[in-house]
Amino acid sequence: MYILLVYDIKFDEDGVGEKILPKVFKICKKYLYHIQNSVFEGELTKSEIYKLRYELENIIRKDLDSIIVFESRNERWLNKEFWGVEEDKTSNFL
Amino acid sequence: MYILLVYDIKFDEDGVGEKILPKVFKICKKYLYHIQNSVFEGELTKSEIYKLRYELENIIRKDLDSIIVFESRNERWLNKEFWGVEEDKTSNFL
Repeated sequence: MYILLVYDIKFDEDGVGEKILPKVFKICKKYLYHIQNSVFEGELTKSEIYKLRYELENIIRKDLDSIIVFESRNERWLNKEFWGVEEDKTSNFL
Repeated sequence: MYILLVYDIKFDEDGVGEKILPKVFKICKKYLYHIQNSVFEGELTKSEIYKLRYELENIIRKDLDSIIVFESRNERWLNKEFWGVEEDKTSNFL
């Protein structure tokens, strides 16, 4: 299953967002490739998606933080274009 | 054509990024729905995609700023899930 994940962690005065952000980044990087600031993609099995969701939902504040996950059975159904600088796939799938 | 657009405008010491960001936001909002911090989606014709790209490429710095555009012929091929807070479709398609 092709997965595209985008997150938005809210920064408040309490500083909690700043602590959550690197944890969310680390979890996403464990499963997916980092393609832009807060955007990740990759091929995951249903079981990996379940684990990723479980790990992220343990960290984020469900009333503040937003994670949108797009799933497609076939990556070919989705054409990807870079209109500005093309970021490298620097992270590894673990 | 279903379009998903994510952008990342770099903030440098020269303050140019801060000026570009609201312009990029405004252009995207003219064509698409705002669904997360720097994420937009919507149905566009080929001609609208061309105009959107033309407007954005006039604004962004191609060596610094990143815009990734995912295109799918059919929105049904892409399943969307919200794992945290679900953001409203507050913007209008013009």
